[in-house]
Amino acid sequence: MGHGMTSRRAFLGASAAVCALLAGCAAPARFADPLPSWNDGTARQSIVAFVAKVTREGTAGYVPPAERIAVFDNDGTLWSEQPVYVQLAFALDRVKALAPRHPEWQTQEPFASLLKGDVAGAFAGGEKAVAQIVMATHAGTTTEEFATIVKDWLATARHPVTGRPYTGMVYQPMLELLGYLRANGFRTFIVSGGGIEFMRPWTEQVYGIPPEQVVGSSIRTKYELRDGEPVLVRLPELDFIDDKAGKPVGIHQHVGRRPILAVGNSDGDFEMLEWTTAGEGPRLGVIVHHDDSAREYAYDRKSHIGRLDRGLDEAGRRGWVLVSMKDDWRTIYPAP
Amino acid sequence: MGHGMTSRRAFLGASAAVCALLAGCAAPARFADPLPSWNDGTARQSIVAFVAKVTREGTAGYVPPAERIAVFDNDGTLWSEQPVYVQLAFALDRVKALAPRHPEWQTQEPFASLLKGDVAGAFAGGEKAVAQIVMATHAGTTTEEFATIVKDWLATARHPVTGRPYTGMVYQPMLELLGYLRANGFRTFIVSGGGIEFMRPWTEQVYGIPPEQVVGSSIRTKYELRDGEPVLVRLPELDFIDDKAGKPVGIHQHVGRRPILAVGNSDGDFEMLEWTTAGEGPRLGVIVHHDDSAREYAYDRKSHIGRLDRGLDEAGRRGWVLVSMKDDWRTIYPAP
Repeated sequence: MGHGMTSRRAFLGASAAVCALLAGCAAPARFADPLPSWNDGTARQSIVAFVAKVTREGTAGYVPPAERIAVFDNDGTLWSEQPVYVQLAFALDRVKALAPRHPEWQTQEPFASLLKGDVAGAFAGGEKAVAQIVMATHAGTTTEEFATIVKDWLATARHPVTGRPYTGMVYQPMLELLGYLRANGFRTFIVSGGGIEFMRPWTEQVYGIPPEQVVGSSIRTKYELRDGEPVLVRLPELDFIDDKAGKPVGIHQHVGRRPILAVGNSDGDFEMLEWTTAGEGPRLGVIVHHDDSAREYAYDRKSHIGRLDRGLDEAGRRGWVLVSMKDDWRTIYPAP
Repeated sequence: MGHGMTSRRAFLGASAAVCALLAGCAAPARFADPLPSWNDGTARQSIVAFVAKVTREGTAGYVPPAERIAVFDNDGTLWSEQPVYVQLAFALDRVKALAPRHPEWQTQEPFASLLKGDVAGAFAGGEKAVAQIVMATHAGTTTEEFATIVKDWLATARHPVTGRPYTGMVYQPMLELLGYLRANGFRTFIVSGGGIEFMRPWTEQVYGIPPEQVVGSSIRTKYELRDGEPVLVRLPELDFIDDKAGKPVGIHQHVGRRPILAVGNSDGDFEMLEWTTAGEGPRLGVIVHHDDSAREYAYDRKSHIGRLDRGLDEAGRRGWVLVSMKDDWRTIYPAP
């Protein structure tokens, strides 16, 4: 599966010509390149070769469809996580939206700093400050109310640098990869440190990943009756952190099978790739390397967001595929 | 969809005759009764009418396949839970198997009583005793080791009354219902108070329900490296109880959609049925009533296992379908 672009294009051109000669020849979908935004380098070739191997019936590498589980990190893997995690932007906007109902926030940290626009000051409180902001902005509603709040926010919020909706800052090559895998009998899951209920309202529409295939961090919920109607209320109590060594735990809890393909971008994904690729039979680990300061961002070992250090050191000896956004991706974002 | 058995059989007979006249006419699967173990009463008719309604495109009741989520309790709904929960039988056998490694159990309760065969004495310690037995028998292994232990046990364990393997004590009418729903675009989930990792090793083979569609109670797991190989270790710490008001919570956490069909048999399923049937559009709640002392067991309001009291009182006014095992099921268990 390693023919270069030139020969592939010549082949596609010939196919189209043959096709044009035949009556009833519809869109030549089987000849269309499923990964048009991927340049023809080692990364693309490794992915295509892996998919070919696990789908070839009657060979040693064949994996039945039920076991073709592919897991994807979200922030920095499927969409941009710079200059801040999208969910953090959401939380900060929620603090502003909720401030009129919380006059005490004018003097109470970390809210007071946030409301003055001093994000760094707010986070001087460390993990405790983060937890306070998350609980204040993510708890207290029913699950259905929260889903509506997220959808409404995404419909109007804009990326601070590009001015695009956040859902327009997904990576086009990854949309193609998700579709390519599904077309080859894989099921695609998100396994993110982000909130499960922050993602589920929109992942089906944006990525084609339904809610039951989204794994993430969570707060507790409680079943209760309100005016006789049952609701699930979101409590200000941490339930599960789906990051680092938590990712294999979250995968096991939700999927109950070990994936055969894992894609991440930071050391928060290290254990997910390690767990995935340590299984028997064909396995593939993929790391997206943010090295494109012109079209996206360039960051790795020293970044506070999406730090990639150990993964860079060990990808080679572990046989994980390193995707260079600069070299391997022809385009970054979908056309607006 | 309410034609009686007579007219349905006449129709099938005519179809078969027509079919025999046609060349290349294969097994007339589309005419075969998908629920042969269900007598033609109100319960069957309600289920068939519901499925017809939600699958009829272009009508008000139509539900797209992605939303056709059906949830099933396991113990007492898909397989027999008398005279003891199967998982309890497993735990008791595990205590015996592990006893040589735990000489202290000879004098330490609840193990000492159990090892003398005094089950009632062991459970005199109440919830604490149950927790001790569960942790001693369900924790301490890796997830893969535990799955093997469960499969090995099920391969040899026998029901104390019938002498059949427990997997032979599943309800034939429910196997048919699961298949009928899946053939109509539903996805079938188990939502059980039982352990998620006790069920996942065998539900695909026995019920056609894959591990990612099993929701249950859980203990915590921890990711670690053993001799360089990553494993998930089962810890003696409770994670989640998937029973009563926990069932809607578990469904939300795993599926992220509200089901449209819920099937249970005890008051432990009440909130699951309540949550399911309170949603908008067509919904169906089904309760299996154990009223067949001749072929299975008869128990409801006063049983310690699978108590059905509130559900019996409220099924009528809530429009839930009550399935009489005695009257609605032609057979109980699959042919050995």
